[in-house]
Amino acid sequence: MRSAAVIGTGLIGTSVALALSQRGVSVYLSDADPSTARTAAAMGAGNLGLPETPVDLAVFAVPPARISAEVARWQRIGLARAYTDVGSVKARPGQELSACGGDPASYVGGHPLAGGERSGPLAARGDLFQGRYWVLTTSDHTDQSAFNHALELVSLCGAVPVLMNTVAHDRAVALTSHAPHMLAALMAGRLVEAEDSAVRISGQGLRDMTRIAGGDPGLWSEILDSNAAAVADVLASVADDLDRTVSALRALVEKDEASAESSRRDLEELLRRGTTGRARIPQKDGRPSFDLTAVPVEISDRPGALAHLLADAGACGVNIEDVRIEHVPDPPRGLVELMVERAAAGPLSASLRNSGWLLQK
Amino acid sequence: MRSAAVIGTGLIGTSVALALSQRGVSVYLSDADPSTARTAAAMGAGNLGLPETPVDLAVFAVPPARISAEVARWQRIGLARAYTDVGSVKARPGQELSACGGDPASYVGGHPLAGGERSGPLAARGDLFQGRYWVLTTSDHTDQSAFNHALELVSLCGAVPVLMNTVAHDRAVALTSHAPHMLAALMAGRLVEAEDSAVRISGQGLRDMTRIAGGDPGLWSEILDSNAAAVADVLASVADDLDRTVSALRALVEKDEASAESSRRDLEELLRRGTTGRARIPQKDGRPSFDLTAVPVEISDRPGALAHLLADAGACGVNIEDVRIEHVPDPPRGLVELMVERAAAGPLSASLRNSGWLLQK
Repeated sequence: MRSAAVIGTGLIGTSVALALSQRGVSVYLSDADPSTARTAAAMGAGNLGLPETPVDLAVFAVPPARISAEVARWQRIGLARAYTDVGSVKARPGQELSACGGDPASYVGGHPLAGGERSGPLAARGDLFQGRYWVLTTSDHTDQSAFNHALELVSLCGAVPVLMNTVAHDRAVALTSHAPHMLAALMAGRLVEAEDSAVRISGQGLRDMTRIAGGDPGLWSEILDSNAAAVADVLASVADDLDRTVSALRALVEKDEASAESSRRDLEELLRRGTTGRARIPQKDGRPSFDLTAVPVEISDRPGALAHLLADAGACGVNIEDVRIEHVPDPPRGLVELMVERAAAGPLSASLRNSGWLLQK
Repeated sequence: MRSAAVIGTGLIGTSVALALSQRGVSVYLSDADPSTARTAAAMGAGNLGLPETPVDLAVFAVPPARISAEVARWQRIGLARAYTDVGSVKARPGQELSACGGDPASYVGGHPLAGGERSGPLAARGDLFQGRYWVLTTSDHTDQSAFNHALELVSLCGAVPVLMNTVAHDRAVALTSHAPHMLAALMAGRLVEAEDSAVRISGQGLRDMTRIAGGDPGLWSEILDSNAAAVADVLASVADDLDRTVSALRALVEKDEASAESSRRDLEELLRRGTTGRARIPQKDGRPSFDLTAVPVEISDRPGALAHLLADAGACGVNIEDVRIEHVPDPPRGLVELMVERAAAGPLSASLRNSGWLLQK
């Protein structure tokens, strides 16, 4: 890929443009708001304005409702050889493109799984997509060369391509992105009328739980609109569980011992489903949570021995994901398992042996 | 304070014990599970077993339903001169203490606003409470000397004491901790039956939003039970908003243009309430989000100038919280405002001037 156009220079568009520019691609920048495009250009994301001859790929980073019309319009002008977008919903733009008079052959749907709390070009980074999944969707009409241009884009951005069916993609993002966003917003919305003293004692848990609710309401209502059926299905089942929760809590307030027992069971089961579901989420993007291995170390039973071991392990720069400890009676000692990523087990073992620790196995 | 007993050596109890031990207090450790107390002792949190003479303060870090009975039991034995706990609900233990035959005079309710995703003594840290709020609650019967012992505990742990009414406290934590926990769990619970390919493309947003759902279900069902009325009130109002959301989404699926307009307005209003509510949450514990100040820097209008400025600002170790940019036409240049914490503005300005940047004002 030698040239590209980025239409829409917000956080995602400017980050794509930065990544491509940094890899030597000639990038042309355009945005409905000229000052936004100027800011992106000032950051080194590319040149203002449009190319005189068609570029290899045009990337549309515009609000979801405008994608199909914009792609169709620029296809008629002949801006590029291939067209893709970065919208988080995929079924509708594909369906609408033909209706708008667009060409489905040169269009590949795209959705990079990256973003940030802040929006706009100033929050952009060329490495925003590094190691992230980037979903691509095709139709029966898609040209192989258009698909290959999209694959090259993903690769130049350092991301991992994933081919998905548009409907499966939209259901997946309803579950893992759109419904969580709405729930975070509804929880945060309850703080609007809270007393200052209540908000003051909120901690990291609430901050993390509502972080995504900081996104632009106008953009997010468009995203939810464009995936309304799938999001409604997820939220309706959350609403059922929420009603069950409220009923259980009200029954506990009544202090009727017969119903209290089953209410407590209900609550605990719902909480347990939460921990089970959460364990399925990859720990870091693209890295499953179960790829851990144990480094077993013997320690003496004296106070501070474990603290020393953890300090030595921490000093060698390896991330300790979990620690398990067992006490062995004869002679009295501890067996500590340091859980680390598989690739880190070798360096950690070597470093601990050097520091005089006794490793098992 | 010269001596303390910590009853219950999980994450919070062991962290309290570590903080006190590190400040020279003699700490005695006890837990219903002896191996847990042994692990805490091995980490340097204190001595196993109980003191022969009364300690200055006993800290109860046991499940919420057991607090009042445990405090009353140890008050009868005369374990300490003053008693406090670290439970996240405060009205019920206070009410129940007298019913259990306990002494309200030597008891002060406590709730440190700190915690972690992981539980158990191995996750404990002596600096867990550093800079965090620590709520204290008293009754009409509370001794001044007991209150002063609790204040000293908070101070030795490096936390900031906040005196609150028990009912106001419980309503506040229902809103900022218990209801968010349950909602995070309900969202995570929807992942249990999801397809692998859907879970695979989940990102940082879902991970953050559901982080708190990793907590121990048994402990959390007890916490919710002990604050059931207040949590039910918050969740019932979230349920109303959730029903409104699902109705709006279903109306958008119907594509009835008359109702679509008001449905979009509903969604956007709910999302906007979310961003408004979220803006009320302090950015870091105990630090309001608005204590930022601008460092204004002139830059040339050439590509890359902004990137260089941000790199130089980043290199001096100051956290840039936000960036605003304006373009000035004559001569063409940019005016960049780097938003930083008030205390960081001086060092950042000096460092940028040293690097040759032109600062305004």
